[in-house]
Amino acid sequence: MFVAKVVGSVWATRKHPDLKGGKLLLVKPVEPVSGEYAGATALALDGGVGAGVGDTVLVLDEGGSARKVIKNDNAPVRTLICGVLDSVHSGGKDKKYA
Amino acid sequence: MFVAKVVGSVWATRKHPDLKGGKLLLVKPVEPVSGEYAGATALALDGGVGAGVGDTVLVLDEGGSARKVIKNDNAPVRTLICGVLDSVHSGGKDKKYA
Amino acid sequence: MFVAKVVGSVWATRKHPDLKGGKLLLVKPVEPVSGEYAGATALALDGGVGAGVGDTVLVLDEGGSARKVIKNDNAPVRTLICGVLDSVHSGGKDKKYA
Amino acid sequence: MFVAKVVGSVWATRKHPDLKGGKLLLVKPVEPVSGEYAGATALALDGGVGAGVGDTVLVLDEGGSARKVIKNDNAPVRTLICGVLDSVHSGGKDKKYA
Amino acid sequence: MFVAKVVGSVWATRKHPDLKGGKLLLVKPVEPVSGEYAGATALALDGGVGAGVGDTVLVLDEGGSARKVIKNDNAPVRTLICGVLDSVHSGGKDKKYA
Repeated sequence: MFVAKVVGSVWATRKHPDLKGGKLLLVKPVEPVSGEYAGATALALDGGVGAGVGDTVLVLDEGGSARKVIKNDNAPVRTLICGVLDSVHSGGKDKKYA
Repeated sequence: MFVAKVVGSVWATRKHPDLKGGKLLLVKPVEPVSGEYAGATALALDGGVGAGVGDTVLVLDEGGSARKVIKNDNAPVRTLICGVLDSVHSGGKDKKYA
Repeated sequence: MFVAKVVGSVWATRKHPDLKGGKLLLVKPVEPVSGEYAGATALALDGGVGAGVGDTVLVLDEGGSARKVIKNDNAPVRTLICGVLDSVHSGGKDKKYA
Repeated sequence: MFVAKVVGSVWATRKHPDLKGGKLLLVKPVEPVSGEYAGATALALDGGVGAGVGDTVLVLDEGGSARKVIKNDNAPVRTLICGVLDSVHSGGKDKKYA
Repeated sequence: MFVAKVVGSVWATRKHPDLKGGKLLLVKPVEPVSGEYAGATALALDGGVGAGVGDTVLVLDEGGSARKVIKNDNAPVRTLICGVLDSVHSGGKDKKYA
């Protein structure tokens, strides 16, 4: 599980039928304490938390959980947004993200 | 899940019987916003979306989903193309891929 | 499985219901013999060992185990703190962490 | 799934009983288009395709598939050779591997 | 699956009950042909092969297998030592590890 920022969305007409209902977002990992980007952009499905571009989010990268959250045992998903970050507490300081 | 470009295909006479029907493609990860390559080339099976060389695609790297999509619980697969990217929306701009 | 230091905690109001009871901590991998940081910060759930900021911990990054430890087959979790490190024995020396 | 070259074999007298029948090979990832090495050497089991040192192979790195291919649900395996590469087609050219 | 050297052990009083019986070792990946270190130190459980500090070992990093080998479907384990390396054969030469 990691922290990432939603940096965009993708559009794909031809895709697996079980992906048709979901919103596919681009998430770029961030170091949660500094807020700096720290890794390659991934594709994630919103797991029902209403995340949008600009939000810093909690990302889960595991297929078993992802399919249970979207309640579809056959969907080809692995990366899921399962929370929207409000703030990080570290070293006696708070960093606000929302 | 990540975005990648289909850069080629492979030919293998000797392979596991459950791989015989599928098309094995080479996919190279790209940073979706810039379109630049960003990682090592992987082998992926087309999950029924009709992807070809030159397409930018959505790739899923998880065995459980992959076997369900190709409807074969015993096939040795993990990496699957599950969509063809049309465009990316980020920072108020659209980047077209198809 | 790897060794990491708990460097902070996160606050998220909007999150998947199955994450509501757990404590979400930030864990930064360390080289256990030298104690130096060695990788990107991840998000982990405390698997019942009472870990806190400043502790050096044992981290498991696998969804199947994580869901069993927290006794919730549907929770979106993958990264779990499953122990608190006291010391490392290597090269004839002991390095104390607690 | 990735492309790799078989660079050697290993010998281990003390090992898990379910690994006793299999051939343990060393596989080094290659960039399939250029043929250059591109990553750390892994240990793989031959999944019945008769791969040998010098072959360029298709490697699957996923436990669920691996155990099904070797027909042993309890074997500690994850990395499996599931094909021998003949050639790669990319950019209008063929690169022969066998 | 990869080759690693056992470089130490860890002590943790507070840990998940299902980890209490096992020996937790520190394993550092090595390039098997050269014997050089090649990656970050991981935590592994001995899967019944009697590995000790100084041994070069075969490591499996997959939860499903790991839980079957230690015969505990609920244990939080992923990384398992499943063999002790005697030698590597590569490029017409033998490198002895034991």
